[in-house]
Amino acid sequence: MIRTDLAAEAVGLAEASGRLEGVEKEESQVGGVTISRVRILDERGERAVGKPRGVYVTLSTQNFARTSPENLEDTLRIAAREIARLAEGKTGGGVLVVGLGNAQCTPDALGPKTAEQIFVTRHMARELSQLLDVPGMTPVSSIAPGVLGQTGVETGEIVRGLVERIHPSLVLVIDALAARSMERLGSTVQLSDTGIAPGSGVGNHRQALSEETLGVPVVSIGVPTVVDAVTLATDVLGGREDARQDGLREEIRRMMDDRQAPSMVVTPREIDVLIEHSATLLSMAINRALHPSLESEDLAALTGA
Amino acid sequence: MIRTDLAAEAVGLAEASGRLEGVEKEESQVGGVTISRVRILDERGERAVGKPRGVYVTLSTQNFARTSPENLEDTLRIAAREIARLAEGKTGGGVLVVGLGNAQCTPDALGPKTAEQIFVTRHMARELSQLLDVPGMTPVSSIAPGVLGQTGVETGEIVRGLVERIHPSLVLVIDALAARSMERLGSTVQLSDTGIAPGSGVGNHRQALSEETLGVPVVSIGVPTVVDAVTLATDVLGGREDARQDGLREEIRRMMDDRQAPSMVVTPREIDVLIEHSATLLSMAINRALHPSLESEDLAALTGA
Amino acid sequence: MIRTDLAAEAVGLAEASGRLEGVEKEESQVGGVTISRVRILDERGERAVGKPRGVYVTLSTQNFARTSPENLEDTLRIAAREIARLAEGKTGGGVLVVGLGNAQCTPDALGPKTAEQIFVTRHMARELSQLLDVPGMTPVSSIAPGVLGQTGVETGEIVRGLVERIHPSLVLVIDALAARSMERLGSTVQLSDTGIAPGSGVGNHRQALSEETLGVPVVSIGVPTVVDAVTLATDVLGGREDARQDGLREEIRRMMDDRQAPSMVVTPREIDVLIEHSATLLSMAINRALHPSLESEDLAALTGA
Amino acid sequence: MIRTDLAAEAVGLAEASGRLEGVEKEESQVGGVTISRVRILDERGERAVGKPRGVYVTLSTQNFARTSPENLEDTLRIAAREIARLAEGKTGGGVLVVGLGNAQCTPDALGPKTAEQIFVTRHMARELSQLLDVPGMTPVSSIAPGVLGQTGVETGEIVRGLVERIHPSLVLVIDALAARSMERLGSTVQLSDTGIAPGSGVGNHRQALSEETLGVPVVSIGVPTVVDAVTLATDVLGGREDARQDGLREEIRRMMDDRQAPSMVVTPREIDVLIEHSATLLSMAINRALHPSLESEDLAALTGA
Repeated sequence: MIRTDLAAEAVGLAEASGRLEGVEKEESQVGGVTISRVRILDERGERAVGKPRGVYVTLSTQNFARTSPENLEDTLRIAAREIARLAEGKTGGGVLVVGLGNAQCTPDALGPKTAEQIFVTRHMARELSQLLDVPGMTPVSSIAPGVLGQTGVETGEIVRGLVERIHPSLVLVIDALAARSMERLGSTVQLSDTGIAPGSGVGNHRQALSEETLGVPVVSIGVPTVVDAVTLATDVLGGREDARQDGLREEIRRMMDDRQAPSMVVTPREIDVLIEHSATLLSMAINRALHPSLESEDLAALTGA
Repeated sequence: MIRTDLAAEAVGLAEASGRLEGVEKEESQVGGVTISRVRILDERGERAVGKPRGVYVTLSTQNFARTSPENLEDTLRIAAREIARLAEGKTGGGVLVVGLGNAQCTPDALGPKTAEQIFVTRHMARELSQLLDVPGMTPVSSIAPGVLGQTGVETGEIVRGLVERIHPSLVLVIDALAARSMERLGSTVQLSDTGIAPGSGVGNHRQALSEETLGVPVVSIGVPTVVDAVTLATDVLGGREDARQDGLREEIRRMMDDRQAPSMVVTPREIDVLIEHSATLLSMAINRALHPSLESEDLAALTGA
Repeated sequence: MIRTDLAAEAVGLAEASGRLEGVEKEESQVGGVTISRVRILDERGERAVGKPRGVYVTLSTQNFARTSPENLEDTLRIAAREIARLAEGKTGGGVLVVGLGNAQCTPDALGPKTAEQIFVTRHMARELSQLLDVPGMTPVSSIAPGVLGQTGVETGEIVRGLVERIHPSLVLVIDALAARSMERLGSTVQLSDTGIAPGSGVGNHRQALSEETLGVPVVSIGVPTVVDAVTLATDVLGGREDARQDGLREEIRRMMDDRQAPSMVVTPREIDVLIEHSATLLSMAINRALHPSLESEDLAALTGA
Repeated sequence: MIRTDLAAEAVGLAEASGRLEGVEKEESQVGGVTISRVRILDERGERAVGKPRGVYVTLSTQNFARTSPENLEDTLRIAAREIARLAEGKTGGGVLVVGLGNAQCTPDALGPKTAEQIFVTRHMARELSQLLDVPGMTPVSSIAPGVLGQTGVETGEIVRGLVERIHPSLVLVIDALAARSMERLGSTVQLSDTGIAPGSGVGNHRQALSEETLGVPVVSIGVPTVVDAVTLATDVLGGREDARQDGLREEIRRMMDDRQAPSMVVTPREIDVLIEHSATLLSMAINRALHPSLESEDLAALTGA
């Protein structure tokens, strides 16, 4: 009943219910940012955590909309560094950035709003590298394919069609995530080398986008923007012994089902501000990671950020 | 701990905890719309229900975004009729429509989005009544004053300043509401002759807007767009005997406080669609109620709806 | 120097400068709507008019934002009928609607805003045809691929990639157009079976999207939303004998070039309203044309229009 | 027939047609920014230039959307300094920022979009000055009153009503302007101590907002966002001797009138970007001018810019 897209949370839950095998964890701290690194190593880890094997990096800090400029700059710098690491050696043939989600649905608009602010260079890489005197500029392209209910086409098919035509050597997927705990909203970035697994995310709008389905490496980046209402109610009761004993959970589930709770989400009232800040942070981190030879100031001018 | 702007819900809660005095209720059904009419008669009723005395009309139907065209037309027709009743005899000196809330914050944008679609006539009432051959056209004006955090001015002061200059004989206030139960979201309209009480509403952006503070009658109209997260968690446990006995409520309260839950709300993921549909419904109902001699088709053309 | 995407205007200009061969024209009137039908038959016609051979249907009426409901319904009905005619016999394998242009640039947002309101059925055609009891429902999909400056990828490549994966039997392209004359803005619909030619349109964002490049028939639909500033200035002087004689045109061209006029456009101040109304009109016409067995009322409910 | 809100342009036109009395001019250059200072001294100057007496400061530089970060920072710094000068000694009782125009009409949305990004302090000036350790923080409030066609109320009445209630010692009015020449669009800032004169501006949405009508000093700030189409056509022909001789001007006027040209404007195709950049520039300049003791970085964090 507990649903989370964050590996760090899923590992926490798995640990709470017993010994955890096939998983490595480490944690470090830089300024106000906690960096957690989870490695799911084998099938035992996959089963325990409920996520495919791979590396999951989680940056936790204060809410992006309310933190200090220094802390925000720290988060940005670390996010750019971690993206660069996950992408290392894979950008030579060009990077395709994919902003998943529905631009017309605020809690699900993180992907499209980030994709909009990416500094795209694929159509003018040669001219630009001369103009800016940057040899070997990475060709970057960016798309927001929309969601199944808007397009009538599985997002995976649109992305595959594009990958087959423009042959990037890396796909970078951005998506709004669901967390278990409210204080994660707008204060956490998750990066992973596993792509996006089916059925996860805010809008359930996805088939897998992974190296297996696309034929090129996939790095995924997300920020939690919602907690689902069933998870919240369950979580409130989760720690109680009597709840487990007397079937309260089943009762909750039934109440929530009756009330169309599956489509209900918990968000901050200022969800628009959260999305705006998160999209700016992610796009700036991606732009820095993919164009390390450009100054942040130039990038800001070039993208209008 | 349970928080609701709906008189119908507050009465239900009050009844559950004992005998209810100073309150009258009646309910009727028209097509797929249930009409509940609550009258809070005196101080006993005010205390029991937690709302000022007056009439509260609640229309309950299926979710506006998913119901049939027939049902939507029924809801619209009944809403227009009830607004006309509450406004009866008070429109002669002109009506000022006030859309409360923050246009930049989706769950709180119902008021501004409704105000935008009002057919305003105050600046051209004479010319229009000749052109459309409608004698005695009501002078209507409309404003979205923003919220304190945007303007630095209490909304009540902005509205009072305007009322003092243009002297309407009725103020019609629109606001997004908080409900207790999720199935109320986007499927309920509340109308009242009591104005807006301080501290209620989605964004807490208000001093009282009432006949007492503005000097003219105030009719308020709203649609619930959120449930607050504390209310949800409490409600899930509310019916349980043991929850009351063993201090679980206090425990929840504490957990939620820790997590900045007070600013967290439960909404449908498709909150943008909910706001869009609700604003169109309310503005069409208001336009029909204030301009009964115009055909709906003409109103649609005049307002671009 | 005169630039127009409207075949009807291009034919008018060609006629003014001499005998016109390889072109057929006819005109009819239904209520307040003038229907002009131009057929470019051969190379002579292509050269004279500057457009590829094919059929161009132009509906001219009053400004959509200011006309009567009756006239709007006439325009809608005729547009739906003409789309149905151009699409006749080609929809069996499914229709892909492509909304060209930049959603973030108001005068160029017609395509994306129309694509958003298309009733897509491809992902649920079977379930829907049972539910609505409509045998043989057309599978419709819809995409807004963005523009080169946003994505780094030629729009043509994105569309080709998608066509190759989902194999529609017809592509329907929507785009904002440039007209020569200001009174055309927001009052004209052009439909054609020729696709979109390179270099035309508001934003110059396109390679050809045509049967030749996509491998399936292409129908294009557009509404003029801008006049370019060079065209306006030239046009003002166009009829004057002395202007032609004394090199005034060259002088204008030079003045305009100096002033970065090529990127300047003439629009109504209310360009947002024009785009909104035009997108609603086009999407309703397309929805009716592709789903003739559904009532307009049901379509409105299904698409939220 | 030539219409411009820029005093610098109006002075240029007046000079071209003869000796100019009652007007002082000076010009200076800082980095890439030209600063022109026009003083209209008496009635002769008012008549010749067509603007009320007062000081008009014009900053001219490259297009905000395409210039270098250094140049943008220069423009911002100079704009903040000039606003501070015009406001000097008048902010003690608080400043009310008024964003004129229609937020739903892109070329006219500069005022509302700027007002949104103002750092308002009036409702928490005491707490803030302690928190940020800034003694004597200026109480700032901000409103976007909408336009007559949306509200049914003259903007002047709404502003007067508010001024009478909150008693600021200075009103700062922001508006989109009309220029004569296209290269002015998005590259010019005009500041003045004369308020806004009736009939000027993009949307004709105004009565005078001036010290005379509001009872407190008014500083106005604007950026040209449109050229009107009649002005463009006239201007193209303006320098030609024969145009004056043979009545061509009257002919143009007639043609333009027939074509509803009065509501047609010339803008860059990327009008949305122009508005976005200009609103950010103006709000940052105002925030710096009104809160000189805060670092720009803190202001950016506090306003989310």
